[in-house]
Amino acid sequence: MQGKAAAGHVDVLIVGAGPAGLMMATWLAKCGIKTRIVDKRGTKVFNGQADGLQCRTLEIFDSFGFAHRAWIESNHMLEICLWNPDKEGVIQRSSRIADTIPGISRFQQVVLHQGRIERFFLDAMKDFSEGAVTVERGVMPTSLEIDTSAVEDPDAYPVTVQLRHLGEEESTPKQTATMSNGSSVQDGLFRSNLAADDTADLLKAAELNEKANTTEVVKAKYVVGADGAHSWVRKEIGLKLEGESTDYIWGVLDIVPITDFPDIRMRCAIHSADSGSIMVIPRENKLVRLYIQLTTTEKIGDQDSRTDRSGITPEVILQSAQRIIAPYKLDYRKLDWWTAYQIGQRVGSSFGVHDRVFLAGDAVHTHSPKAGQGMNVSMQDSYNLGWKLANVIKGVTDRSILKTYESERKAIAHALINFDHKFSRLFSGRPARDIMDEEGISMEEFKNAFTKGNLFASGIGTTSSLSSSGKQCANFRKAVDYDGSAIVSKPDGTGSGEDNIGAQSLASELKIGQRIPSVKVLNQSDARPWHLQELLRSNGTWRVILFPGDVSKTEQKKKMEGLCEAMAAPSSFLNHFRATDSRYDSVIEVLTVHASKRADFDIFDFPEVLRPYDEVEGWDYNKIFADDESYHEGHGQLYKNFGISSDEGCVVVLRPDQYISYVGKIDDYKSIDGFFSGFMLPQNTKSEAKS
Amino acid sequence: MQGKAAAGHVDVLIVGAGPAGLMMATWLAKCGIKTRIVDKRGTKVFNGQADGLQCRTLEIFDSFGFAHRAWIESNHMLEICLWNPDKEGVIQRSSRIADTIPGISRFQQVVLHQGRIERFFLDAMKDFSEGAVTVERGVMPTSLEIDTSAVEDPDAYPVTVQLRHLGEEESTPKQTATMSNGSSVQDGLFRSNLAADDTADLLKAAELNEKANTTEVVKAKYVVGADGAHSWVRKEIGLKLEGESTDYIWGVLDIVPITDFPDIRMRCAIHSADSGSIMVIPRENKLVRLYIQLTTTEKIGDQDSRTDRSGITPEVILQSAQRIIAPYKLDYRKLDWWTAYQIGQRVGSSFGVHDRVFLAGDAVHTHSPKAGQGMNVSMQDSYNLGWKLANVIKGVTDRSILKTYESERKAIAHALINFDHKFSRLFSGRPARDIMDEEGISMEEFKNAFTKGNLFASGIGTTSSLSSSGKQCANFRKAVDYDGSAIVSKPDGTGSGEDNIGAQSLASELKIGQRIPSVKVLNQSDARPWHLQELLRSNGTWRVILFPGDVSKTEQKKKMEGLCEAMAAPSSFLNHFRATDSRYDSVIEVLTVHASKRADFDIFDFPEVLRPYDEVEGWDYNKIFADDESYHEGHGQLYKNFGISSDEGCVVVLRPDQYISYVGKIDDYKSIDGFFSGFMLPQNTKSEAKS
Repeated sequence: MQGKAAAGHVDVLIVGAGPAGLMMATWLAKCGIKTRIVDKRGTKVFNGQADGLQCRTLEIFDSFGFAHRAWIESNHMLEICLWNPDKEGVIQRSSRIADTIPGISRFQQVVLHQGRIERFFLDAMKDFSEGAVTVERGVMPTSLEIDTSAVEDPDAYPVTVQLRHLGEEESTPKQTATMSNGSSVQDGLFRSNLAADDTADLLKAAELNEKANTTEVVKAKYVVGADGAHSWVRKEIGLKLEGESTDYIWGVLDIVPITDFPDIRMRCAIHSADSGSIMVIPRENKLVRLYIQLTTTEKIGDQDSRTDRSGITPEVILQSAQRIIAPYKLDYRKLDWWTAYQIGQRVGSSFGVHDRVFLAGDAVHTHSPKAGQGMNVSMQDSYNLGWKLANVIKGVTDRSILKTYESERKAIAHALINFDHKFSRLFSGRPARDIMDEEGISMEEFKNAFTKGNLFASGIGTTSSLSSSGKQCANFRKAVDYDGSAIVSKPDGTGSGEDNIGAQSLASELKIGQRIPSVKVLNQSDARPWHLQELLRSNGTWRVILFPGDVSKTEQKKKMEGLCEAMAAPSSFLNHFRATDSRYDSVIEVLTVHASKRADFDIFDFPEVLRPYDEVEGWDYNKIFADDESYHEGHGQLYKNFGISSDEGCVVVLRPDQYISYVGKIDDYKSIDGFFSGFMLPQNTKSEAKS
Repeated sequence: MQGKAAAGHVDVLIVGAGPAGLMMATWLAKCGIKTRIVDKRGTKVFNGQADGLQCRTLEIFDSFGFAHRAWIESNHMLEICLWNPDKEGVIQRSSRIADTIPGISRFQQVVLHQGRIERFFLDAMKDFSEGAVTVERGVMPTSLEIDTSAVEDPDAYPVTVQLRHLGEEESTPKQTATMSNGSSVQDGLFRSNLAADDTADLLKAAELNEKANTTEVVKAKYVVGADGAHSWVRKEIGLKLEGESTDYIWGVLDIVPITDFPDIRMRCAIHSADSGSIMVIPRENKLVRLYIQLTTTEKIGDQDSRTDRSGITPEVILQSAQRIIAPYKLDYRKLDWWTAYQIGQRVGSSFGVHDRVFLAGDAVHTHSPKAGQGMNVSMQDSYNLGWKLANVIKGVTDRSILKTYESERKAIAHALINFDHKFSRLFSGRPARDIMDEEGISMEEFKNAFTKGNLFASGIGTTSSLSSSGKQCANFRKAVDYDGSAIVSKPDGTGSGEDNIGAQSLASELKIGQRIPSVKVLNQSDARPWHLQELLRSNGTWRVILFPGDVSKTEQKKKMEGLCEAMAAPSSFLNHFRATDSRYDSVIEVLTVHASKRADFDIFDFPEVLRPYDEVEGWDYNKIFADDESYHEGHGQLYKNFGISSDEGCVVVLRPDQYISYVGKIDDYKSIDGFFSGFMLPQNTKSEAKS
């Protein structure tokens, strides 16, 4: 199908090369989809715009192979300190909280500026596509039309977009323009902050003018609008953001602080008695980001009531900060970036049209930056959509799975703005002086909201006590837990799971609809410990994970062999849904984690379908794993942590984004086959029908 | 002093850009020393020549910031399987051993081909020197003269070297020439195996001809010969290798194996009954390296008795392997590289002349590759020498410390070839059929030698039970433990430690002369856990680590304050040995690890000398650490693991290469000062005297 595309035709056109657009382009590059990504700015972001990276975002980065770059360069946030006024109105540290809930992920939340994160995506895109997918800068769309008669035809290119190549002046980085009076600071640091690997991009920007002021027409199967809060794509398809703004104004300073405040390298929420609040976010390279409240009264307004911000300068913001943080001193010699903003929360009524044009990131939800969510939720939007588009474009699955993008992500966007709405007001309000002070904010309530928000901010939902550090976690409300659908077979019978109710109990700590947690397992062939998630690379394939339990027990071994016999059949879901000449794991990969002693077995004790043979490369040594003690890194205790009995076992199906689709019995081949048949397209039949 | 260098003058000239030469150049680049590195080959190594990386080597890589690159790309070796003939003469797995001794390091042994390791060095060199230090390829020395009258003058350039720039033909990669009949295989893979980041180098090689056949004269303060087993530098300074070769011939195949041998992804030592032995080294990218014994009789000979190897082909080697590994099948479709070699062990009588020209790596010791030591010991040679040269050239220390290069590394080289001699014979010999078979090799003896060799192969000595995984390790004989000298204050009174005998007991598990082990500690300011070694970056500075114990106890606090008062004085070793306008930690850095609860303290509870102030950057938040429980990564238990009492504490001095120089009482300022005064040069006095 991809071969059909003529010149000017593209499978996916992405508008906007911020984190949401780059995540999308990286996903599609990894899956080999013909993709273009355009951005009206002439260069990428070089500083400012720092943000936290949630642990779930780092898990996703790791699935593309670059989490370590963020991990090494970023500042790690380990502890949150809450500072409140004491009885005399003097701020005191009232509590310390772990920043990332222990046990929730193998990563902890970190902070790094957006320019570096964009660099990691650009490098990965280039690597995955062998240079074919690069950001086309200084290019903006000027019209978008959808041929609605063709939207259900899988081979059609129903979206027509006109692109205009801008001249250098038009494409000057917007980041300067969005700052309030900050251009001199910005400019002064523009060059000095350049990382070495950004130089090539800057040079490339100089080549923009070659095509300046020309236009071209692109025919696309799909368009993704990742073009930010003022999204052109959103307006073009007639969608709006709904919500409100407030009159609370906050300033942001990125400084190298000189201070005697003892927690300046911790994430802090400081509530002063009467002068407003500060959020402290320690960053890389000795920088600290301070979110500083500038006004302490709230007026609910609409978009037109925006306050005049022309009087706001770094000096004004610093003076506010000094009042809030007193009696501690605060000053700086180095200012890296600054801005000011008004709080507001808005979300799109719809996430796209005709399942052909989609919105992702700020284009479809905006909120205040302090929740530390912005970039993460945006990237996770396109992480959710990317593999679905790739699967559909490749003809692996039915187009209907695209509907789950909105059903899954809209709920997240609403949860985000609801949390942000509540949190912003709790943070901007004056602390209560005592229990009788009803107008003031209860610091206990604030702490509770902060803690809940912290789970939400992880990007991960869990109800388990799973912990890699051996500590027990309290039960938390779920955060990211996708609803039932054709690709999420919920145990309550929603989704595709009508005949699978109750199977969830086979893996009591794995929650269908949530991302699979991770513990260490050992490769059967070389004894190397891997985090389970490290095996689940983002490459567009579905995965069946077989947990056969203790295979030294005859009954478990027999069940495993029975399932494997069915899977090895030519008509099985492993063979039916992939082209006969494709690699055995190109659509669905089978992994096995058994609960027996590793040293009592070798891979030849397992059925061949679990360790396929290749004529050139021999046996596949990377499919069978043991839940056993490692030499240097402890015992993952996967069966225990996942709530799987080694006397019963189970089968888990994972989506290409590591979310759990299905849990079922190990000897229930029919149910697994039924799950895949609900949305996958038979390959060999199809190519016959077409030829 | 560096400013004095005229054109054609260089502080250090390195001959040879293999791992030993690149380690040296990287060290010197990091320390800001004016360095040139030349290699007669036109390009770097692109495949073949794989080797194991010891855990100590990875620790060193990490101190330069690139261990993660090796860790990610390499194959990790976790388990060794020993296979011996059973009573019927059929090979059976007789035991499994952990490949890296648990607890010895935070890294485990890995395997990666030399071309990638060279790439990491080249990138680090470029980064550290901002492009100033690069390998000059196709350049060879043609004469070397030493002005012996000037060798003790610290400002002199007593070594004169003539360099010739080769034409393209002369500088064709030697790797092809050193292979036995393997050129067609090599050539076929030469391009396909190229990593993306090597492309620039290949292009650069084309520029060689510009200076072809020109010569130049270089005046150097120091020359390092890292030019391999056939070292030109060694011959030029009149030194020889002494030792012997044997007639055991081994073949090497790098293949993607097709086999039913179950342990092909483990490191295996296979002794067949009568057909010889195989060592299996699983590599990256599905490759496996097989060392295959081709002859089973030993004749001790000298260098001239080398066997005719023209009849050796990959087919011949494979057939040998098939005989040894029977009844298992072994075959391949992909052959990456192959060679054959004769075992021999040789070591130089001396490691240099006049402490002006030094030899490192294969230039001064050669042995069989199977011990997995070659590249590691070579790199560790120049890691030992590099900081000493940098310290001396900068005028920080007296020239006399250069003598410790030979005294420290010659002992290691001898230990290496003695081990290799014994191990090679045990591995090449026929297994004993039973206890009465005196000509055969005892498999028990082989296993013991293997296990001991494994400690040696770690590159680390330890007598402790230190373990990060909570397991106890047995006591092992020391491996790398430098003798007493001006820079190693041994507790037995050798070296500079006459007045410090017995202080070793203050940190019973830290061994003076060995590298400091690592456990996690928490940054006092932001609660982030770091491995202690991660704080000890290779940058040429000495370190004083203050272990004040539990500072909530008045007595410990007082001792700490007393020491800090002395250290803060203008005449203290912290100020006396550095130029007044240099940064506070440029020559000696002070780190503190206390044993109190982190949350009970902040950095302002500690004396200012432990958290120095800078007018632009504020307080230094990265000097004070706590031995306490972390939120996500457990408790390092440093005091317990290092054998330090929290009621007594101690002071440890580390060399720039992380070896322990000195252990002393926390209130014995005079002894620490005496240690540094033994070899460091007063800076401020000196510059006055000179001006």
